[in-house]
Amino acid sequence: MKKMGEFDYIDWLRRHAPANRRVLVGPGDDAAVLDWSSGRPCLVTTDMLMDGVDFYLAEAGPFRVGRKTMAANLSDIAAMAGIPVAAVLAVALPRTGDSKLAEELYRGLREVGDAFYTSIVGGDTNSWNGPLVISATVLGEPHGRGPVLRSGAKPGDWLLVTGPLGGSIRGKHLDFTPRVREALQLNERVHLHAMIDISDGLAADVGHICDESGCGAVLRAENVPLSPAAAQLEQALFDGEDFELAFAVAPADGECLLRDQPIAGITLFKIGEFVEKGLWLEQAGKRRPLEPKGWQHEL
Amino acid sequence: MKKMGEFDYIDWLRRHAPANRRVLVGPGDDAAVLDWSSGRPCLVTTDMLMDGVDFYLAEAGPFRVGRKTMAANLSDIAAMAGIPVAAVLAVALPRTGDSKLAEELYRGLREVGDAFYTSIVGGDTNSWNGPLVISATVLGEPHGRGPVLRSGAKPGDWLLVTGPLGGSIRGKHLDFTPRVREALQLNERVHLHAMIDISDGLAADVGHICDESGCGAVLRAENVPLSPAAAQLEQALFDGEDFELAFAVAPADGECLLRDQPIAGITLFKIGEFVEKGLWLEQAGKRRPLEPKGWQHEL
Repeated sequence: MKKMGEFDYIDWLRRHAPANRRVLVGPGDDAAVLDWSSGRPCLVTTDMLMDGVDFYLAEAGPFRVGRKTMAANLSDIAAMAGIPVAAVLAVALPRTGDSKLAEELYRGLREVGDAFYTSIVGGDTNSWNGPLVISATVLGEPHGRGPVLRSGAKPGDWLLVTGPLGGSIRGKHLDFTPRVREALQLNERVHLHAMIDISDGLAADVGHICDESGCGAVLRAENVPLSPAAAQLEQALFDGEDFELAFAVAPADGECLLRDQPIAGITLFKIGEFVEKGLWLEQAGKRRPLEPKGWQHEL
Repeated sequence: MKKMGEFDYIDWLRRHAPANRRVLVGPGDDAAVLDWSSGRPCLVTTDMLMDGVDFYLAEAGPFRVGRKTMAANLSDIAAMAGIPVAAVLAVALPRTGDSKLAEELYRGLREVGDAFYTSIVGGDTNSWNGPLVISATVLGEPHGRGPVLRSGAKPGDWLLVTGPLGGSIRGKHLDFTPRVREALQLNERVHLHAMIDISDGLAADVGHICDESGCGAVLRAENVPLSPAAAQLEQALFDGEDFELAFAVAPADGECLLRDQPIAGITLFKIGEFVEKGLWLEQAGKRRPLEPKGWQHEL
Protein backbone atom coordinates (compact mmCIF):
# COMPACT_ATOMS: atom_id res chain seq x y z
CA MET A 1 0.00 0.00 0.00
CA LYS A 2 2.86 2.40 -0.75
CA LYS A 3 5.01 3.14 -3.71
CA MET A 4 7.87 5.53 -4.13
CA GLY A 5 6.95 8.93 -5.46
CA GLU A 6 3.79 9.07 -3.41
CA PHE A 7 5.70 9.93 -0.28
CA ASP A 8 4.87 13.58 -0.51
CA TYR A 9 1.21 12.65 -0.40
CA ILE A 10 1.67 10.30 2.52
CA ASP A 11 3.41 13.15 4.31
CA TRP A 12 0.63 15.48 3.27
CA LEU A 13 -1.98 13.06 4.57
CA ARG A 14 -0.09 12.60 7.82
CA ARG A 15 0.20 16.34 8.35
CA HIS A 16 -3.45 16.94 7.53
CA ALA A 17 -5.02 13.97 9.30
CA PRO A 18 -7.32 14.97 12.15
CA ALA A 19 -7.12 12.93 15.33
CA ASN A 20 -9.31 9.83 15.23
CA ARG A 21 -9.18 7.41 18.13
CA ARG A 22 -10.15 4.56 15.80
CA VAL A 23 -6.98 4.94 13.75
CA LEU A 24 -4.24 2.96 15.49
CA VAL A 25 -1.87 3.15 12.50
CA GLY A 26 -2.56 5.64 9.72
CA PRO A 27 -0.90 6.28 6.36
CA GLY A 28 2.71 5.18 5.91
CA ASP A 29 2.86 1.50 6.85
CA ASP A 30 2.02 -1.56 4.73
CA ALA A 31 -1.56 -1.46 5.97
CA ALA A 32 -3.59 0.83 8.18
CA VAL A 33 -4.74 -0.51 11.54
CA LEU A 34 -8.19 0.43 12.82
CA ASP A 35 -9.57 -0.13 16.30
CA TRP A 36 -12.56 -2.47 15.97
CA SER A 37 -12.92 -3.38 19.63
CA SER A 38 -16.66 -2.70 19.48
CA GLY A 39 -16.98 -6.10 17.88
CA ARG A 40 -19.61 -4.62 15.55
CA PRO A 41 -19.71 -5.84 11.97
CA CYS A 42 -17.53 -4.10 9.43
CA LEU A 43 -19.28 -2.52 6.46
CA VAL A 44 -17.12 -2.18 3.36
CA THR A 45 -17.89 -0.57 0.03
CA THR A 46 -15.83 0.56 -2.95
CA ASP A 47 -16.40 2.85 -5.94
CA MET A 48 -14.11 3.75 -8.82
CA LEU A 49 -14.57 6.94 -10.88
CA MET A 50 -12.94 7.61 -14.25
CA ASP A 51 -12.35 10.81 -16.19
CA GLY A 52 -14.68 10.92 -19.19
CA VAL A 53 -17.18 8.55 -17.59
CA ASP A 54 -18.07 9.71 -14.08
CA PHE A 55 -16.79 13.27 -14.48
CA TYR A 56 -14.93 15.48 -16.91
CA LEU A 57 -11.81 16.58 -15.09
CA ALA A 58 -11.29 19.63 -17.28
CA GLU A 59 -14.78 20.87 -16.43
CA ALA A 60 -15.26 19.73 -12.85
CA GLY A 61 -11.72 20.28 -11.58
CA PRO A 62 -9.93 17.93 -9.16
CA PHE A 63 -11.51 19.32 -5.98
CA ARG A 64 -15.03 18.39 -7.05
CA VAL A 65 -13.83 15.01 -8.34
CA GLY A 66 -12.38 14.30 -4.91
CA ARG A 67 -15.63 15.39 -3.28
CA LYS A 68 -17.71 13.15 -5.53
CA THR A 69 -15.48 10.13 -4.98
CA MET A 70 -15.76 10.31 -1.21
CA ALA A 71 -19.45 11.27 -1.27
CA ALA A 72 -20.41 8.38 -3.59
CA ASN A 73 -18.74 5.90 -1.25
CA LEU A 74 -20.29 7.46 1.84
CA SER A 75 -23.67 7.28 0.13
CA ASP A 76 -23.32 3.48 0.04
CA ILE A 77 -22.61 3.46 3.78
CA ALA A 78 -25.67 5.71 4.25
CA ALA A 79 -27.76 3.20 2.30
CA MET A 80 -26.94 0.63 5.00
CA ALA A 81 -27.72 3.19 7.75
CA GLY A 82 -24.08 2.85 8.71
CA ILE A 83 -21.57 5.11 10.41
CA PRO A 84 -18.48 5.62 8.25
CA VAL A 85 -15.15 5.09 10.00
CA ALA A 86 -12.27 5.31 7.55
CA ALA A 87 -11.33 5.33 3.88
CA VAL A 88 -8.44 4.20 1.72
CA LEU A 89 -7.78 5.63 -1.73
CA ALA A 90 -6.10 4.46 -4.90
CA VAL A 91 -5.46 6.89 -7.73
CA ALA A 92 -3.89 6.88 -11.18
CA LEU A 93 -2.89 10.48 -11.87
CA PRO A 94 -2.35 11.65 -15.43
CA ARG A 95 1.26 12.73 -16.01
CA THR A 96 -0.11 15.75 -17.84
CA GLY A 97 -1.61 17.05 -14.60
CA ASP A 98 0.19 19.85 -12.78
CA SER A 99 1.37 19.48 -9.22
CA LYS A 100 -1.88 20.93 -7.86
CA LEU A 101 -3.96 18.06 -9.22
CA ALA A 102 -3.24 15.54 -6.47
CA GLU A 103 -3.45 18.12 -3.72
CA GLU A 104 -6.80 19.51 -4.89
CA LEU A 105 -8.11 15.97 -5.30
CA TYR A 106 -7.17 15.15 -1.73
CA ARG A 107 -8.64 18.41 -0.47
CA GLY A 108 -11.94 17.48 -2.06
CA LEU A 109 -11.80 13.98 -0.61
CA ARG A 110 -10.94 15.38 2.78
CA GLU A 111 -13.68 18.01 2.79
CA VAL A 112 -16.37 15.34 2.54
CA GLY A 113 -14.46 12.83 4.65
CA ASP A 114 -14.00 15.34 7.46
CA ALA A 115 -17.67 16.31 7.41
CA PHE A 116 -18.49 12.69 8.25
CA TYR A 117 -15.55 11.91 10.57
CA THR A 118 -14.09 9.57 7.97
CA SER A 119 -10.31 9.47 8.16
CA ILE A 120 -8.23 8.74 5.09
CA VAL A 121 -5.96 6.06 6.52
CA GLY A 122 -4.01 4.93 3.49
CA GLY A 123 -3.65 5.04 -0.21
CA ASP A 124 -1.82 4.03 -3.32
CA THR A 125 -0.85 6.97 -5.52
CA ASN A 126 0.29 6.18 -9.05
CA SER A 127 0.88 8.14 -12.21
CA TRP A 128 0.49 7.10 -15.81
CA ASN A 129 -0.17 8.35 -19.33
CA GLY A 130 -3.92 7.68 -19.08
CA PRO A 131 -6.78 9.78 -17.70
CA LEU A 132 -7.47 10.26 -14.00
CA VAL A 133 -8.87 7.18 -12.25
CA ILE A 134 -9.72 7.26 -8.57
CA SER A 135 -11.01 4.50 -6.37
CA ALA A 136 -12.02 4.73 -2.74
CA THR A 137 -12.99 2.07 -0.24
CA VAL A 138 -14.89 3.13 2.86
CA LEU A 139 -15.27 1.07 6.02
CA GLY A 140 -18.09 1.65 8.42
CA GLU A 141 -20.20 0.16 11.17
CA PRO A 142 -23.90 -0.54 11.37
CA HIS A 143 -25.85 1.45 13.89
CA GLY A 144 -28.71 0.65 16.20
CA ARG A 145 -30.88 -1.94 14.50
CA GLY A 146 -27.98 -3.14 12.41
CA PRO A 147 -27.36 -2.71 8.70
CA VAL A 148 -30.40 -1.97 6.54
CA LEU A 149 -30.24 -4.28 3.53
CA ARG A 150 -32.04 -4.20 0.20
CA SER A 151 -33.80 -7.44 0.97
CA GLY A 152 -36.34 -6.58 3.66
CA ALA A 153 -39.18 -4.87 1.76
CA LYS A 154 -42.62 -6.49 2.09
CA PRO A 155 -45.78 -6.12 0.00
CA GLY A 156 -47.83 -3.35 1.61
CA ASP A 157 -44.75 -1.35 2.68
CA TRP A 158 -44.61 2.27 1.66
CA LEU A 159 -41.82 3.51 -0.60
CA LEU A 160 -40.31 6.84 0.47
CA VAL A 161 -37.47 9.00 -0.83
CA THR A 162 -35.41 11.66 0.91
CA GLY A 163 -35.67 14.36 -1.75
CA PRO A 164 -36.56 15.44 -5.29
CA LEU A 165 -35.07 13.54 -8.19
CA GLY A 166 -33.72 13.94 -11.72
CA GLY A 167 -31.32 16.15 -13.62
CA SER A 168 -28.39 15.42 -11.32
CA ILE A 169 -26.01 15.70 -14.28
CA ARG A 170 -26.54 19.47 -14.20
CA GLY A 171 -24.40 19.67 -11.08
CA LYS A 172 -25.74 17.70 -8.12
CA HIS A 173 -23.83 14.54 -9.10
CA LEU A 174 -20.62 16.40 -8.22
CA ASP A 175 -21.80 18.46 -5.27
CA PHE A 176 -24.30 16.33 -3.37
CA THR A 177 -24.08 15.63 0.35
CA PRO A 178 -24.36 11.93 1.16
CA ARG A 179 -27.39 11.14 3.31
CA VAL A 180 -25.37 9.62 6.15
CA ARG A 181 -26.96 11.64 8.95
CA GLU A 182 -30.46 11.37 7.51
CA ALA A 183 -30.15 7.58 7.30
CA LEU A 184 -29.05 7.34 10.93
CA GLN A 185 -31.91 9.57 12.05
CA LEU A 186 -34.45 7.56 10.06
CA ASN A 187 -33.02 4.31 11.43
CA GLU A 188 -33.37 5.61 15.01
CA ARG A 189 -36.94 6.72 14.44
CA VAL A 190 -38.53 3.84 12.55
CA HIS A 191 -37.82 0.30 11.44
CA LEU A 192 -36.40 0.63 7.93
CA HIS A 193 -37.27 -2.60 6.11
CA ALA A 194 -35.01 -1.98 3.11
CA MET A 195 -32.98 0.91 1.75
CA ILE A 196 -30.82 1.87 -1.24
CA ASP A 197 -29.14 5.04 -2.45
CA ILE A 198 -30.34 6.18 -5.86
CA SER A 199 -27.24 5.95 -8.03
CA ASP A 200 -28.40 3.97 -11.07
CA GLY A 201 -31.72 5.81 -11.24
CA LEU A 202 -35.00 5.55 -9.31
CA ALA A 203 -36.61 2.84 -11.45
CA ALA A 204 -33.45 0.73 -11.53
CA ASP A 205 -32.75 1.10 -7.82
CA VAL A 206 -36.30 0.36 -6.72
CA GLY A 207 -35.96 -2.64 -9.03
CA HIS A 208 -32.90 -3.73 -7.03
CA ILE A 209 -34.88 -3.58 -3.77
CA CYS A 210 -37.66 -5.62 -5.41
CA ASP A 211 -35.20 -8.20 -6.76
CA GLU A 212 -33.52 -8.65 -3.41
CA SER A 213 -36.77 -8.58 -1.43
CA GLY A 214 -38.65 -10.91 -3.75
CA CYS A 215 -41.51 -8.50 -4.23
CA GLY A 216 -42.71 -5.76 -6.60
CA ALA A 217 -43.46 -2.04 -6.42
CA VAL A 218 -45.83 0.57 -7.82
CA LEU A 219 -44.55 4.10 -8.30
CA ARG A 220 -47.15 6.88 -8.46
CA ALA A 221 -46.17 9.39 -11.12
CA GLU A 222 -48.03 12.24 -9.44
CA ASN A 223 -46.07 11.74 -6.23
CA VAL A 224 -42.55 11.50 -7.60
CA PRO A 225 -40.90 14.81 -6.66
CA LEU A 226 -39.01 16.45 -9.51
CA SER A 227 -35.85 18.33 -8.67
CA PRO A 228 -35.55 21.88 -10.08
CA ALA A 229 -32.90 20.49 -12.48
CA ALA A 230 -35.39 18.02 -13.97
CA ALA A 231 -37.90 19.06 -16.65
CA GLN A 232 -39.93 15.87 -16.84
CA LEU A 233 -40.89 12.70 -15.00
CA GLU A 234 -38.61 10.48 -17.09
CA GLN A 235 -35.59 12.24 -15.65
CA ALA A 236 -36.70 11.53 -12.09
CA LEU A 237 -37.34 7.89 -13.00
CA PHE A 238 -34.26 7.11 -15.08
CA ASP A 239 -31.48 9.63 -14.43
CA GLY A 240 -28.65 8.30 -12.29
CA GLU A 241 -26.70 9.74 -9.39
CA ASP A 242 -29.38 11.52 -7.38
CA PHE A 243 -27.82 9.96 -4.28
CA GLU A 244 -31.06 10.34 -2.36
CA LEU A 245 -32.23 7.36 -0.32
CA ALA A 246 -35.21 5.21 -1.29
CA PHE A 247 -36.57 3.06 1.52
CA ALA A 248 -39.37 0.74 2.59
CA VAL A 249 -41.29 1.16 5.83
CA ALA A 250 -44.51 -0.18 7.31
CA PRO A 251 -47.49 2.11 6.49
CA ALA A 252 -47.88 3.28 10.10
CA ASP A 253 -44.23 4.35 10.19
CA GLY A 254 -44.60 5.99 6.81
CA GLU A 255 -47.57 8.00 8.05
CA CYS A 256 -45.59 9.22 11.07
CA LEU A 257 -42.65 10.22 8.91
CA LEU A 258 -44.81 12.15 6.44
CA ARG A 259 -46.76 13.85 9.20
CA ASP A 260 -43.80 14.76 11.44
CA GLN A 261 -41.16 15.31 8.73
CA PRO A 262 -38.61 14.72 11.49
CA ILE A 263 -35.40 15.05 9.48
CA ALA A 264 -34.09 18.61 9.54
CA GLY A 265 -33.25 20.08 6.16
CA ILE A 266 -35.03 17.54 3.98
CA THR A 267 -38.56 16.64 3.00
CA LEU A 268 -39.61 13.00 2.84
CA PHE A 269 -41.90 11.97 -0.01
CA LYS A 270 -44.03 8.87 -0.39
CA ILE A 271 -43.74 7.82 -4.01
CA GLY A 272 -45.43 4.42 -4.01
CA GLU A 273 -45.94 1.06 -2.34
CA PHE A 274 -44.46 -2.38 -2.50
CA VAL A 275 -46.67 -5.10 -4.00
CA GLU A 276 -46.44 -8.83 -4.62
CA LYS A 277 -44.62 -8.62 -7.93
CA GLY A 278 -43.71 -6.54 -10.95
CA LEU A 279 -42.48 -2.97 -11.27
CA TRP A 280 -45.22 -0.51 -12.20
CA LEU A 281 -45.85 3.14 -12.85
CA GLU A 282 -49.34 4.43 -12.02
CA GLN A 283 -50.26 7.63 -13.82
CA ALA A 284 -53.74 9.24 -14.07
CA GLY A 285 -55.22 6.10 -12.53
CA LYS A 286 -53.64 3.75 -15.10
CA ARG A 287 -50.95 1.25 -14.20
CA ARG A 288 -48.31 0.24 -16.76
CA PRO A 289 -45.05 -1.74 -16.51
CA LEU A 290 -41.99 0.32 -15.62
CA GLU A 291 -38.68 -0.77 -17.02
CA PRO A 292 -36.01 -0.90 -14.28
CA LYS A 293 -33.54 0.84 -16.52
CA GLY A 294 -31.05 3.51 -15.61
CA TRP A 295 -27.60 4.70 -16.40
CA GLN A 296 -25.52 1.68 -17.30
CA HIS A 297 -21.92 0.73 -17.81
CA GLU A 298 -21.85 -1.31 -21.00
CA LEU A 299 -19.53 -4.28 -20.65
CA MET B 1 -20.94 -0.25 -4.68
CA LYS B 2 -22.99 -1.47 -7.66
CA LYS B 3 -23.76 -0.18 -11.06
CA MET B 4 -25.92 -1.53 -13.81
CA GLY B 5 -24.15 -3.68 -16.34
CA GLU B 6 -21.99 -5.31 -13.73
CA PHE B 7 -24.83 -7.50 -12.54
CA ASP B 8 -23.56 -10.50 -14.42
CA TYR B 9 -20.34 -10.28 -12.44
CA ILE B 10 -22.16 -9.89 -9.15
CA ASP B 11 -24.11 -13.02 -10.07
CA TRP B 12 -20.88 -14.72 -11.07
CA LEU B 13 -19.27 -13.77 -7.77
CA ARG B 14 -22.29 -14.95 -5.83
CA ARG B 15 -22.31 -18.29 -7.62
CA HIS B 16 -18.58 -18.77 -7.18
CA ALA B 17 -18.17 -17.49 -3.63
CA PRO B 18 -17.02 -20.17 -1.20
CA ALA B 19 -18.69 -20.23 2.20
CA ASN B 20 -17.03 -17.91 4.70
CA ARG B 21 -18.58 -17.50 8.13
CA ARG B 22 -17.12 -13.99 8.36
CA VAL B 23 -19.19 -12.78 5.40
CA LEU B 24 -22.61 -11.76 6.74
CA VAL B 25 -23.61 -9.96 3.52
CA GLY B 26 -21.60 -10.56 0.36
CA PRO B 27 -21.75 -9.01 -3.11
CA GLY B 28 -25.02 -7.42 -4.22
CA ASP B 29 -25.98 -4.90 -1.56
CA ASP B 30 -24.77 -1.32 -1.10
CA ALA B 31 -21.95 -2.51 1.12
CA ALA B 32 -20.66 -5.87 2.27
CA VAL B 33 -21.06 -6.78 5.94
CA LEU B 34 -18.29 -8.68 7.69
CA ASP B 35 -18.42 -10.30 11.11
CA TRP B 36 -15.83 -8.56 13.31
CA SER B 37 -17.03 -9.89 16.66
CA SER B 38 -13.48 -10.84 17.60
CA GLY B 39 -12.97 -7.18 18.41
CA ARG B 40 -9.48 -7.44 16.90
CA PRO B 41 -8.19 -4.46 14.96
CA CYS B 42 -8.98 -4.22 11.28
CA LEU B 43 -6.04 -4.08 8.87
CA VAL B 44 -6.80 -2.39 5.57
CA THR B 45 -4.60 -1.97 2.51
CA THR B 46 -5.20 -0.97 -1.10
CA ASP B 47 -3.26 -1.27 -4.37
CA MET B 48 -4.14 -0.13 -7.88
CA LEU B 49 -2.56 -1.67 -10.98
CA MET B 50 -2.67 -0.16 -14.46
CA ASP B 51 -2.08 -1.64 -17.90
CA GLY B 52 1.22 -0.36 -19.28
CA VAL B 53 2.61 0.40 -15.83
CA ASP B 54 2.22 -2.61 -13.55
CA PHE B 55 1.63 -5.16 -16.30
CA TYR B 56 1.13 -5.41 -20.02
CA LEU B 57 -2.30 -6.94 -20.49
CA ALA B 58 -1.56 -8.18 -24.01
CA GLU B 59 1.47 -10.11 -22.72
CA ALA B 60 0.38 -11.20 -19.26
CA GLY B 61 -3.27 -11.94 -19.96
CA PRO B 62 -6.11 -11.12 -17.57
CA PHE B 63 -5.73 -14.21 -15.38
CA ARG B 64 -2.20 -13.29 -14.31
CA VAL B 65 -3.22 -9.65 -13.87
CA GLY B 66 -5.95 -10.79 -11.48
CA ARG B 67 -3.46 -13.00 -9.64
CA LYS B 68 -0.97 -10.16 -9.27
CA THR B 69 -3.59 -7.70 -8.04
CA MET B 70 -4.75 -9.96 -5.24
CA ALA B 71 -1.25 -11.17 -4.40
CA ALA B 72 0.17 -7.62 -4.15
CA ASN B 73 -2.56 -6.67 -1.68
CA LEU B 74 -2.13 -9.86 0.34
CA SER B 75 1.59 -9.18 0.46
CA ASP B 76 0.85 -5.97 2.36
CA ILE B 77 -1.24 -7.93 4.87
CA ALA B 78 1.65 -10.42 5.14
CA ALA B 79 4.01 -7.52 5.90
CA MET B 80 1.90 -6.81 9.01
CA ALA B 81 1.89 -10.53 9.92
CA GLY B 82 -1.86 -10.33 9.41
CA ILE B 83 -4.53 -12.83 8.46
CA PRO B 84 -6.47 -11.68 5.40
CA VAL B 85 -10.26 -11.80 5.71
CA ALA B 86 -11.93 -10.28 2.66
CA ALA B 87 -11.37 -8.16 -0.43
CA VAL B 88 -13.32 -5.66 -2.50
CA LEU B 89 -12.43 -4.84 -6.10
CA ALA B 90 -12.89 -1.92 -8.43
CA VAL B 91 -12.10 -2.27 -12.12
CA ALA B 92 -12.21 -0.15 -15.25
CA LEU B 93 -12.44 -2.61 -18.13
CA PRO B 94 -11.42 -1.55 -21.63
CA ARG B 95 -14.37 -1.67 -24.03
CA THR B 96 -12.05 -3.32 -26.52
CA GLY B 97 -11.77 -6.38 -24.27
CA ASP B 98 -13.77 -9.46 -25.18
CA SER B 99 -16.27 -10.99 -22.79
CA LYS B 100 -13.64 -13.33 -21.36
CA LEU B 101 -11.56 -10.47 -19.96
CA ALA B 102 -13.59 -9.83 -16.82
CA GLU B 103 -14.13 -13.51 -16.14
CA GLU B 104 -10.45 -14.41 -16.48
CA LEU B 105 -9.50 -11.43 -14.34
CA TYR B 106 -11.85 -12.61 -11.60
CA ARG B 107 -10.58 -16.17 -11.91
CA GLY B 108 -7.05 -14.94 -11.30
CA LEU B 109 -8.17 -12.84 -8.35
CA ARG B 110 -10.09 -15.77 -6.95
CA GLU B 111 -7.26 -18.27 -7.35
CA VAL B 112 -5.02 -16.27 -5.03
CA GLY B 113 -7.88 -15.13 -2.80
CA ASP B 114 -9.09 -18.69 -2.30
CA ALA B 115 -5.58 -19.91 -1.47
CA PHE B 116 -5.60 -17.51 1.48
CA TYR B 117 -9.27 -17.78 2.50
CA THR B 118 -9.89 -14.24 1.31
CA SER B 119 -13.44 -13.81 0.05
CA ILE B 120 -14.26 -11.24 -2.60
CA VAL B 121 -17.21 -9.55 -0.93
CA GLY B 122 -17.96 -6.71 -3.29
CA GLY B 123 -16.88 -4.68 -6.21
CA ASP B 124 -17.47 -1.92 -8.66
CA THR B 125 -17.17 -2.98 -12.28
CA ASN B 126 -16.95 -0.24 -14.89
CA SER B 127 -16.04 -0.03 -18.54
CA TRP B 128 -14.42 2.77 -20.48
CA ASN B 129 -12.32 3.61 -23.52
CA GLY B 130 -9.07 3.57 -21.53
CA PRO B 131 -6.72 0.72 -20.58
CA LEU B 132 -7.45 -1.82 -17.84
CA VAL B 133 -7.22 -0.42 -14.31
CA ILE B 134 -7.84 -2.62 -11.31
CA SER B 135 -7.83 -1.73 -7.66
CA ALA B 136 -8.27 -4.05 -4.72
CA THR B 137 -8.67 -3.37 -1.02
CA VAL B 138 -7.99 -6.20 1.41
CA LEU B 139 -9.12 -6.32 5.04
CA GLY B 140 -7.38 -8.48 7.57
CA GLU B 141 -6.69 -9.03 11.23
CA PRO B 142 -3.47 -8.99 13.19
CA HIS B 143 -2.41 -12.28 14.70
CA GLY B 144 -0.80 -13.23 17.95
CA ARG B 145 1.54 -10.42 18.97
CA GLY B 146 -0.47 -7.92 16.96
CA PRO B 147 0.44 -6.16 13.75
CA VAL B 148 4.14 -5.93 12.90
CA LEU B 149 4.88 -2.34 11.89
CA ARG B 150 7.81 -0.78 10.08
CA SER B 151 8.70 1.25 13.11
CA GLY B 152 10.11 -1.27 15.60
CA ALA B 153 13.66 -1.96 14.35
CA LYS B 154 16.48 -1.22 16.82
CA PRO B 155 20.23 -0.74 16.28
CA GLY B 156 21.83 -4.16 16.70
CA ASP B 157 18.84 -6.02 15.23
CA TRP B 158 19.54 -8.43 12.41
CA LEU B 159 18.01 -7.87 8.98
CA LEU B 160 16.63 -11.02 7.35
CA VAL B 161 14.79 -11.74 4.09
CA THR B 162 12.56 -14.65 3.11
CA GLY B 163 14.17 -15.42 -0.24
CA PRO B 164 16.48 -14.46 -3.10
CA LEU B 165 15.99 -11.11 -4.78
CA GLY B 166 16.15 -9.31 -8.12
CA GLY B 167 14.95 -9.81 -11.67
CA SER B 168 11.30 -10.09 -10.70
CA ILE B 169 10.30 -8.40 -13.96
CA ARG B 170 11.21 -11.63 -15.79
CA GLY B 171 8.07 -13.25 -14.41
CA LYS B 172 7.92 -13.43 -10.62
CA HIS B 173 6.17 -10.07 -10.33
CA LEU B 174 3.12 -11.69 -11.93
CA ASP B 175 3.32 -15.16 -10.44
CA PHE B 176 4.62 -14.76 -6.88
CA THR B 177 2.91 -16.22 -3.85
CA PRO B 178 2.40 -13.65 -1.09
CA ARG B 179 4.26 -14.58 2.10
CA VAL B 180 1.14 -14.64 4.27
CA ARG B 181 1.76 -18.05 5.83
CA GLU B 182 5.48 -17.47 6.26
CA ALA B 183 4.81 -14.20 8.08
CA LEU B 184 2.38 -15.86 10.47
CA GLN B 185 4.85 -18.68 11.17
CA LEU B 186 7.67 -16.22 11.79
CA ASN B 187 5.45 -14.14 14.05
CA GLU B 188 4.56 -17.21 16.11
CA ARG B 189 8.17 -18.27 16.44
CA VAL B 190 9.99 -15.03 17.25
CA HIS B 191 9.33 -11.41 18.11
CA LEU B 192 9.42 -9.56 14.79
CA HIS B 193 10.53 -6.01 15.58
CA ALA B 194 9.69 -4.58 12.15
CA MET B 195 8.70 -5.96 8.76
CA ILE B 196 8.00 -4.83 5.19
CA ASP B 197 7.31 -6.56 1.89
CA ILE B 198 9.86 -5.75 -0.79
CA SER B 199 7.82 -4.00 -3.45
CA ASP B 200 9.79 -0.81 -4.16
CA GLY B 201 13.14 -2.64 -4.04
CA LEU B 202 15.36 -3.90 -1.20
CA ALA B 203 17.32 -0.66 -0.66
CA ALA B 204 14.21 1.50 -0.77
CA ASP B 205 12.19 -0.77 1.50
CA VAL B 206 14.93 -1.21 4.09
CA GLY B 207 15.13 2.58 3.91
CA HIS B 208 11.43 2.73 4.80
CA ILE B 209 12.01 0.57 7.89
CA CYS B 210 14.92 2.82 8.88
CA ASP B 211 12.87 6.00 8.38
CA GLU B 212 9.99 4.70 10.46
CA SER B 213 12.20 3.16 13.13
CA GLY B 214 14.53 6.15 13.42
CA CYS B 215 17.65 4.08 12.84
CA GLY B 216 19.99 2.98 10.04
CA ALA B 217 21.08 -0.27 8.39
CA VAL B 218 24.10 -1.92 6.82
CA LEU B 219 23.54 -4.42 4.02
CA ARG B 220 26.34 -6.93 3.37
CA ALA B 221 26.76 -7.41 -0.37
CA GLU B 222 28.18 -10.92 0.01
CA ASN B 223 25.09 -12.05 1.91
CA VAL B 224 22.36 -10.66 -0.33
CA PRO B 225 20.90 -13.70 -2.11
CA LEU B 226 20.46 -13.24 -5.85
CA SER B 227 17.48 -14.88 -7.50
CA PRO B 228 18.17 -16.97 -10.63
CA ALA B 229 16.51 -14.19 -12.64
CA ALA B 230 19.05 -11.62 -11.42
CA ALA B 231 22.49 -11.30 -12.99
CA GLN B 232 24.03 -8.80 -10.59
CA LEU B 233 23.81 -7.35 -7.10
CA GLU B 234 22.28 -4.07 -8.29
CA GLN B 235 19.17 -5.96 -9.36
CA ALA B 236 18.72 -7.48 -5.92
CA LEU B 237 19.20 -4.05 -4.33
CA PHE B 238 17.10 -1.89 -6.61
CA ASP B 239 14.62 -3.99 -8.60
CA GLY B 240 11.06 -3.73 -7.36
CA GLU B 241 8.32 -6.30 -6.76
CA ASP B 242 10.23 -9.20 -5.25
CA PHE B 243 7.41 -9.46 -2.69
CA GLU B 244 9.70 -11.22 -0.23
CA LEU B 245 9.60 -10.03 3.37
CA ALA B 246 12.44 -8.09 4.98
CA PHE B 247 12.35 -8.02 8.78
CA ALA B 248 14.21 -7.06 11.93
CA VAL B 249 14.77 -9.43 14.83
CA ALA B 250 17.00 -9.54 17.90
CA PRO B 251 20.31 -11.32 17.17
CA ALA B 252 19.44 -14.34 19.35
CA ASP B 253 16.18 -14.81 17.42
CA GLY B 254 18.03 -14.34 14.15
CA GLU B 255 20.53 -17.05 15.11
CA CYS B 256 17.71 -19.49 15.90
CA LEU B 257 15.96 -18.78 12.61
CA LEU B 258 19.12 -19.24 10.54
CA ARG B 259 20.07 -22.43 12.39
CA ASP B 260 16.61 -24.04 12.41
CA GLN B 261 15.30 -22.68 9.08
CA PRO B 262 11.82 -23.42 10.47
CA ILE B 263 9.69 -22.20 7.58
CA ALA B 264 8.90 -24.99 5.13
CA GLY B 265 9.61 -24.22 1.50
CA ILE B 266 11.78 -21.15 1.98
CA THR B 267 15.29 -20.29 3.13
CA LEU B 268 15.85 -17.33 5.41
CA PHE B 269 18.91 -15.17 4.77
CA LYS B 270 20.62 -12.66 7.02
CA ILE B 271 21.63 -9.75 4.81
CA GLY B 272 22.75 -7.16 7.34
CA GLU B 273 22.15 -5.40 10.62
CA PHE B 274 20.44 -2.28 11.85
CA VAL B 275 22.71 0.52 13.10
CA GLU B 276 22.28 3.98 14.64
CA LYS B 277 21.88 5.86 11.37
CA GLY B 278 22.47 5.91 7.63
CA LEU B 279 21.91 3.31 4.94
CA TRP B 280 25.08 1.47 3.96
CA LEU B 281 26.36 -1.25 1.69
CA GLU B 282 29.38 -3.19 2.94
CA GLN B 283 31.33 -4.94 0.21
CA ALA B 284 34.79 -6.55 0.46
CA GLY B 285 35.18 -4.99 3.89
CA LYS B 286 34.43 -1.46 2.70
CA ARG B 287 31.30 0.46 3.71
CA ARG B 288 29.74 3.01 1.37
CA PRO B 289 26.44 4.90 1.37
CA LEU B 290 23.53 3.07 -0.26
CA GLU B 291 20.89 5.15 -1.98
CA PRO B 292 17.39 4.07 -0.90
CA LYS B 293 16.21 4.17 -4.49
CA GLY B 294 13.91 1.75 -6.24
CA TRP B 295 11.22 1.63 -8.81
CA GLN B 296 9.30 4.88 -8.60
CA HIS B 297 6.07 6.41 -9.83
CA GLU B 298 7.00 9.85 -11.06
CA LEU B 299 4.37 12.40 -10.12
